[in-house]
Amino acid sequence: MIIVGELINSSRKAICQAVKDKDANYIKQVAKEQYEAGADYIDVNAGIFVEQESEYLRWLVQNVQQDLDVPCCIDSPDPKALEAALTVHKGIAMINSISLEKERYDAVLPIIAGTDLKIVALCMGAEGMPQTAADRLKIADKLINGLVQHNIPIDNIYVDPLVQPIGTNDTFGIEFLDAVQTITTKFKGIHTMCGLSNISFGLPKRKFINQVFAIMAVSRGLDGLIVNPLDKSMMASLITAETLAGKDEFCMNYLQAFRNNLMEL
Amino acid sequence: MIIVGELINSSRKAICQAVKDKDANYIKQVAKEQYEAGADYIDVNAGIFVEQESEYLRWLVQNVQQDLDVPCCIDSPDPKALEAALTVHKGIAMINSISLEKERYDAVLPIIAGTDLKIVALCMGAEGMPQTAADRLKIADKLINGLVQHNIPIDNIYVDPLVQPIGTNDTFGIEFLDAVQTITTKFKGIHTMCGLSNISFGLPKRKFINQVFAIMAVSRGLDGLIVNPLDKSMMASLITAETLAGKDEFCMNYLQAFRNNLMEL
Repeated sequence: MIIVGELINSSRKAICQAVKDKDANYIKQVAKEQYEAGADYIDVNAGIFVEQESEYLRWLVQNVQQDLDVPCCIDSPDPKALEAALTVHKGIAMINSISLEKERYDAVLPIIAGTDLKIVALCMGAEGMPQTAADRLKIADKLINGLVQHNIPIDNIYVDPLVQPIGTNDTFGIEFLDAVQTITTKFKGIHTMCGLSNISFGLPKRKFINQVFAIMAVSRGLDGLIVNPLDKSMMASLITAETLAGKDEFCMNYLQAFRNNLMEL
Repeated sequence: MIIVGELINSSRKAICQAVKDKDANYIKQVAKEQYEAGADYIDVNAGIFVEQESEYLRWLVQNVQQDLDVPCCIDSPDPKALEAALTVHKGIAMINSISLEKERYDAVLPIIAGTDLKIVALCMGAEGMPQTAADRLKIADKLINGLVQHNIPIDNIYVDPLVQPIGTNDTFGIEFLDAVQTITTKFKGIHTMCGLSNISFGLPKRKFINQVFAIMAVSRGLDGLIVNPLDKSMMASLITAETLAGKDEFCMNYLQAFRNNLMEL
């Protein structure tokens, strides 16, 4: 499972302050903690600084990678910010994200076409948010075809079926889960990836709901997650779910996590 | 979700002793606790007493139902014990179980044919244990057809796809999960039901593995579970998983469980 560490996001107070103060040490520390907890990518987001997004995103990438050999997930809808961050990024970054929204699609596609970059393909349609699994499949189909035609290997595409709050519609959980399974089954070699905290919006005990939903999504084939890797309970759930999904030979990952005391819940 | 409370099982020391001592109060108390925690059926099993199984099973049913208006899940492979228990059972019992093992099939079928009884159809074949989802589907298909031909409504059939330990084969989790989904999809109106503690046999932190596996199974369509309803963490997981699977209008069950402090994990 691909884990994207979500903590370096300017919508979080401590990160926002650290960026304003140019506190490189704090950014490096949060990156290191996530990396050591098992993050495969470190998400960087400076979206809250509209005017300085490009400059700050570049600064974040430089600091995350200064002491660590880890790629970033560059998290912006703005092609200029993505390009700025890519000029300093070492190794193969993940871009979060392209969608079917026309302006975004047309602007992000040239940046990623023909490259080795990993790309999150968000199931946001030209006409707005999808409701059903069928809506999501239709958007994913167009996105995947467009990306493949522009020489992006299917193995580099991470479809994000877009999580919506269960509190606003009873079917939003099951439609998402069905979408994960259908997309995974229909497009051999594709990946799926999402942030899932939206699912619990407006409900009590959000952390618990998010964890149960993550397990359900792994059961349907999800193989990537934008998540807090310092959340031991979540990480233990993901490792265990992958073991039970047949993705852990001889239960080695499970047993190693147990030996590392990750299962002490 | 149908919850079968698993605690009144003679393989458990305290229950074995209570049966030997004819300690009706203890049996009544364990039944009441499970009922109040949300059990729809109370499992009764006297399998450890080979000679007196019929007598003891009957005694268990009588005591469980003396103060409670709750049906039992009569848990025995022995048709004589099933019949003895049914003579005293009030309401509509669940029978656990019939399978394709020839002797068991031929003996249990006449007891349930044409009745309103709920029946667990265990995916154990004439030639032994299934390995794959396809094996399970083949057995389920034969069992369901046989039962329906003997005037058992499909809504009264609970297929148990048979959980096997992930520690002995990496694929045993995913093959079970695939079986749940295929059986649920192929036979409209069918139920699926299992005990799942076998999944974690031989591994550390079994309770946690069982809980994650239960959530994964609900994600695939499982709608019945033989489980300890006093395990708050498991019950909270099941309620949350059902909410996320679109089976909880306006998240009412989730919110009620939260108000009842079930989500205090």
